[in-house]
Amino acid sequence: MNTDKVDEKAVRELIENWARSVRERNMDGILASHARDIVMFDVPPPRVSRGIEAYRETWSLFYTSQAEPIAFDIQELDVVAGAKVAFAVALMQCAVKGRMGEREPLDFRLTVGLRKEDERWIVVHEHHSIPAT
Amino acid sequence: MNTDKVDEKAVRELIENWARSVRERNMDGILASHARDIVMFDVPPPRVSRGIEAYRETWSLFYTSQAEPIAFDIQELDVVAGAKVAFAVALMQCAVKGRMGEREPLDFRLTVGLRKEDERWIVVHEHHSIPAT
Repeated sequence: MNTDKVDEKAVRELIENWARSVRERNMDGILASHARDIVMFDVPPPRVSRGIEAYRETWSLFYTSQAEPIAFDIQELDVVAGAKVAFAVALMQCAVKGRMGEREPLDFRLTVGLRKEDERWIVVHEHHSIPAT
Repeated sequence: MNTDKVDEKAVRELIENWARSVRERNMDGILASHARDIVMFDVPPPRVSRGIEAYRETWSLFYTSQAEPIAFDIQELDVVAGAKVAFAVALMQCAVKGRMGEREPLDFRLTVGLRKEDERWIVVHEHHSIPAT
């Protein structure tokens, strides 16, 4: 396995572990590999959330909208990794609470930007969205 | 200027030139640095467009919705570039046609993923979105 493949595998595992932490409501796990100055573009407003505290708050908002048990499922994941910079492109699905409390699957798109610092991959950017209607 | 800075500058210029091509309705310029297998997450549906022909069609749709002259303005742009992989994070503004034909500024978010092939930076992914309301 060449270096690119090692890095690609590391980034893929990071994202799979992060998604599992989201499903488990494990905030320490969600934040474990994230930069203090992360820039987050989330599904709901605001347009941009800057910094790890604002990023943490996006998850509090997320959980208020979600049906139990929490879904945060990776349907497709492509990783492009160099030695120092990587990004990942994913098709994802969660499940929101409908008006009558019913469970409604919600497909969304996810792009993640990472850089390697001290030999560790760190998430510096996330972009979550659904198409505008 | 170290290599990272050279690459960062090259990616920044690529994105600035691409945005200018969008404003000028210059389709050759829009497509000049894009991969045949680009994966596009656009503001309107569909959820995902795969390949350069589908990507081209997203621009035809874009122009039907835009007020003249075309706006496609970079408000903030951050580039993270390694030797082979890079991504860019931007706050952008275009201008749509309102119901009465009036010009309505529209803020959106943009993430771009690139890889270097044969010493040239190539866009392999774009993610454009507005927050869900």
